[in-house]
Amino acid sequence: MLSKSERKLTKPYNLPKRRSQAKHSNAKIYPNVHFASDPNAGDFCILGEPPRGKRAGELATRIGARAVIRSHTVIYAGNVIGDDFQTGHGALVREENKIGNNVSIGSHSIVEHHVVIGNNARLHSNVFVPEFSVLEDDCWLGPNVVVTNARYPQSPGAKENLHGAIIRRGAKIGANATLLPGVTIGENALVGAGAVVVRDVPAGAVVVGNPARVVKRVEEIAEYR
Amino acid sequence: MLSKSERKLTKPYNLPKRRSQAKHSNAKIYPNVHFASDPNAGDFCILGEPPRGKRAGELATRIGARAVIRSHTVIYAGNVIGDDFQTGHGALVREENKIGNNVSIGSHSIVEHHVVIGNNARLHSNVFVPEFSVLEDDCWLGPNVVVTNARYPQSPGAKENLHGAIIRRGAKIGANATLLPGVTIGENALVGAGAVVVRDVPAGAVVVGNPARVVKRVEEIAEYR
Amino acid sequence: MLSKSERKLTKPYNLPKRRSQAKHSNAKIYPNVHFASDPNAGDFCILGEPPRGKRAGELATRIGARAVIRSHTVIYAGNVIGDDFQTGHGALVREENKIGNNVSIGSHSIVEHHVVIGNNARLHSNVFVPEFSVLEDDCWLGPNVVVTNARYPQSPGAKENLHGAIIRRGAKIGANATLLPGVTIGENALVGAGAVVVRDVPAGAVVVGNPARVVKRVEEIAEYR
Repeated sequence: MLSKSERKLTKPYNLPKRRSQAKHSNAKIYPNVHFASDPNAGDFCILGEPPRGKRAGELATRIGARAVIRSHTVIYAGNVIGDDFQTGHGALVREENKIGNNVSIGSHSIVEHHVVIGNNARLHSNVFVPEFSVLEDDCWLGPNVVVTNARYPQSPGAKENLHGAIIRRGAKIGANATLLPGVTIGENALVGAGAVVVRDVPAGAVVVGNPARVVKRVEEIAEYR
Repeated sequence: MLSKSERKLTKPYNLPKRRSQAKHSNAKIYPNVHFASDPNAGDFCILGEPPRGKRAGELATRIGARAVIRSHTVIYAGNVIGDDFQTGHGALVREENKIGNNVSIGSHSIVEHHVVIGNNARLHSNVFVPEFSVLEDDCWLGPNVVVTNARYPQSPGAKENLHGAIIRRGAKIGANATLLPGVTIGENALVGAGAVVVRDVPAGAVVVGNPARVVKRVEEIAEYR
Repeated sequence: MLSKSERKLTKPYNLPKRRSQAKHSNAKIYPNVHFASDPNAGDFCILGEPPRGKRAGELATRIGARAVIRSHTVIYAGNVIGDDFQTGHGALVREENKIGNNVSIGSHSIVEHHVVIGNNARLHSNVFVPEFSVLEDDCWLGPNVVVTNARYPQSPGAKENLHGAIIRRGAKIGANATLLPGVTIGENALVGAGAVVVRDVPAGAVVVGNPARVVKRVEEIAEYR
């Protein structure tokens, strides 16, 4: 398919020559960002971005051992993140979140501020998680899942009445599902792809549709037994 | 938790002055990336990113003539891409895909690995295409279309049972539609915006809703005759 | 709309040492980009990107006072943008748009070309707005809202028959909602999260579902009274 004139282009950076910097050569890392072991920070990342009203380096950022932070990711200052953290490319993590061990935040996903994420949580690509959400251990959010927190956006009291969703341990949210503000998704529940969840989902329930309705139990699915 | 080797990195730029590199001045291009003609690679792109377990330059990447790769795009090593390839800004193309001629992958769209994309396929903005999907010639995926491949995510056998969707020649998938794992969208079919497709769509059918149902044939739409 | 103190900023690579440019240290700013006051342009931004067929600097770009343009954002040349403009990270604004005062375009959102956006409009994260859309004053688009403009994509006359949606003053579009081409969302109407809007929504109506149906009036919601 390609012509014979293929050429090999070499990297145009003028990369720093020190071996110890090669791993995060084109990342911007602010002061007061602490890693438990030398991180693998991709190109064009920003780590320790100061939130509004804070000076560069004013808030400490702590990231555990063996972090892999892929290119174009932005992580704000003031996060406390466990070991074995991974992001895809272009992820955004705002300030003041508590994130457990072995968490993966996929490419282009956004986690706002004051979010709590448990161990082994998996956020796939293009996920949106607003402030005050709680994602417990072992939960899974598929591609393009959207969590919300404002029942009446732009109403006079909206900012004081934000209710993040609670996604209980082991719950799985299918691709492109939408969770309305303040809903709780019970333990090990399964939300179908494209569902719009407008009320709480019981533990172990399977819901689909718009609005989402219970159609069965996860125990009825052979693959989960 | 932190090692004593914490370091603050300062800005790493210092652009090369050579004219021939001006076209991809702020792109990072790894070794073993081959273009059939000098590419137009935007700023802050990464071309030839090594996938997990591979060294930089270990896998060849081949991109045809007249490629236009817009800023902040990441293309992994191991892709074979035809002529007249275009990406929007911030697109992500993982490794080991086969992509035909005259393909466009829009801004912020994600194509995972082991995907086959035919000639003249158009992926609009914010599209997500997982591994093992097949997109035939002349198909069109609108903004925020989400294709899936895991019927029971996080189940014990999920990784061994991934079934990408098959989008047949000339099919069109409306904006923000969701395709469930393994569905086949028939030739020239039209999936309405916001539809959630849970079963195969016959060739030439028009489907809408959640779950998507056939409402007419494309031949009944004057604009397509 | 812009003060007389507009200044032309040139690209800041190989950074000058002057303190006044420190604020946009790793942004790329093309010629003929004018700010009413020194902007806060984040790292890895591109401002004044030339659209297809235009030379760098050929089209003027005007951005009002006190702009905050966060990292990885791309703004094309030919935009006229008011005061107090803000973007999140990784936003994309194509060419030839007219954008009022106090507008916020959230992280990873995309605004195509020839869009009109009124004062105080808020676009949250991952929003997609295609060409020829009209967003009036005080409207709000939640995370992952998708607006469309092509009723029959890829049909022979599609490009000549694009109809952007019209979002009237004060209307609010819930998260992950989809607007079909050419619909008008009336003043102060509220579109529920996940709704698929296939026809016009009257002023003050509340619509939900797929397809979206009127379920009440905003006056019936205490929070909006």
